[in-house]
Amino acid sequence: MSGTDLLHKVVFMLVAVSVVIGVQKVVDITHSLNEDNPRWPDGREFELNVISNGTDSTGGWYAYNDLLFTEHTGTHFDAPCHFAMFPGVYYSSSLPVERLVQPLSVINLQAQANYYRDYEATPNDIITFEKEFGKIPEGGIVIFDFGWSKYWKSFEAVYGSKSEDVTTFHFPGVGLSAAELLASRGVYGVGVDTPSVDYGPSLDFPVHRFLQGQNIFLLENVGNMSALPKGGDGVTLVVGAMKVDGGTGGPARLLALFEDTSSGNIPECALLTVTIVCQIIALFV
Amino acid sequence: MSGTDLLHKVVFMLVAVSVVIGVQKVVDITHSLNEDNPRWPDGREFELNVISNGTDSTGGWYAYNDLLFTEHTGTHFDAPCHFAMFPGVYYSSSLPVERLVQPLSVINLQAQANYYRDYEATPNDIITFEKEFGKIPEGGIVIFDFGWSKYWKSFEAVYGSKSEDVTTFHFPGVGLSAAELLASRGVYGVGVDTPSVDYGPSLDFPVHRFLQGQNIFLLENVGNMSALPKGGDGVTLVVGAMKVDGGTGGPARLLALFEDTSSGNIPECALLTVTIVCQIIALFV
Repeated sequence: MSGTDLLHKVVFMLVAVSVVIGVQKVVDITHSLNEDNPRWPDGREFELNVISNGTDSTGGWYAYNDLLFTEHTGTHFDAPCHFAMFPGVYYSSSLPVERLVQPLSVINLQAQANYYRDYEATPNDIITFEKEFGKIPEGGIVIFDFGWSKYWKSFEAVYGSKSEDVTTFHFPGVGLSAAELLASRGVYGVGVDTPSVDYGPSLDFPVHRFLQGQNIFLLENVGNMSALPKGGDGVTLVVGAMKVDGGTGGPARLLALFEDTSSGNIPECALLTVTIVCQIIALFV
Repeated sequence: MSGTDLLHKVVFMLVAVSVVIGVQKVVDITHSLNEDNPRWPDGREFELNVISNGTDSTGGWYAYNDLLFTEHTGTHFDAPCHFAMFPGVYYSSSLPVERLVQPLSVINLQAQANYYRDYEATPNDIITFEKEFGKIPEGGIVIFDFGWSKYWKSFEAVYGSKSEDVTTFHFPGVGLSAAELLASRGVYGVGVDTPSVDYGPSLDFPVHRFLQGQNIFLLENVGNMSALPKGGDGVTLVVGAMKVDGGTGGPARLLALFEDTSSGNIPECALLTVTIVCQIIALFV
């Protein structure tokens, strides 16, 4: 067998294998809703009222609940109309649906937030991220990982305050200059694992107002991102946001999709790259 | 240039092109929630209470609402614990998340339902579908399209009754034998564009009880599927179901993802198939 023939066979096998091994992984970065969730003080508490939980008149099982809550509860989505109003501003039911399925970038600022609770992400944090993972794509969704999801069960740990007085809050967020840089990249969405994209001490929410004024949606109280590839590299985020006429947001199921490479599977794009390289070599041998 | 060299170049170009053209399309098959949604009579009506809708003390815009509703409202998800109770039954927060992202099959029974409102899907409907689109995959999600989403704005059109008396309801659903065949295929979810997988006249919900007893989730009042590829071929459905501790279901954002071939783009899998065929030929020329 000549070298060229061998190369043909290797390429053929690689391409054939790439068709069958694309194992998709799904990671849920959504906190479960319940009555103990730490919540922003001005909203009503989450209530689950059990209406039926047992056998019905036919002798079969029948269980269901009523749910009562404020839109901006738990892991949730802020439609741009939450903090901005202009012609064409998006409500939860009018946001173009392709914006809900986009490449994810996860900017890990756990060390910074661990060092200083009131840390605000800077343009330099974004530029540092881009040096490692490439430029944030137009239309992408960027989530800042401050390591805050580990605090989720405790109001005091999340808000840095025993009191519901908003002037006592301390938690990290996104600085206005960083938000401006993200908007210049053309992102569709910005998220945090804290209760607000504006850091705890903010009382006038300039980052909410700026980003939503650009029709950019927000994600808050995002759940644990530790099972995602570093930087969110290769992840498509699906934002399963509630769709409500006149809705300013709502609980969102956040599902991160990516090719699983942890169990020895090779991602399709890697195989295609190898295939292309082999093809180029094959042109010259 | 020899025939083999030309073939190499063609294969190379095809593979290279396949890397860059994967244009993903997102179709939303979710009805918007609002206070006029036709609803099952025993649940509370959907309420959106405006809490803020104007400028706040800082002079900036601030709008949000409280939402109050029954879990089984609008386009929604039934966790298996809605109609079944056994050790290991899934709640909305405990359902394995990979079950929410699976290949979709859409079985179109619009003609049958148009002819007879109380039509129940049969095993033969499934077998006919499989002859055209291939066997329903293990773990897949199957939705029956009765053409019912066109009736969504009218309670009478959806339920076939002016009355909320459940004994007067007429709409199509899934027959028990068809449900048994789907369960034998190992599906994770079964959906309909009507208010219930059990047809209108049912009063004891055998299909709910059977499927949920197999830990299969349900989707009801699914929105317009007309923009999907025929049969749901090549579609991955993402079920953005609310995640509630103790939840028996909830509104779900249903996003259908597929490669867009309508604008002349060729799906990656087709290119890979062509590539493999070329490779096989290349081995012998």
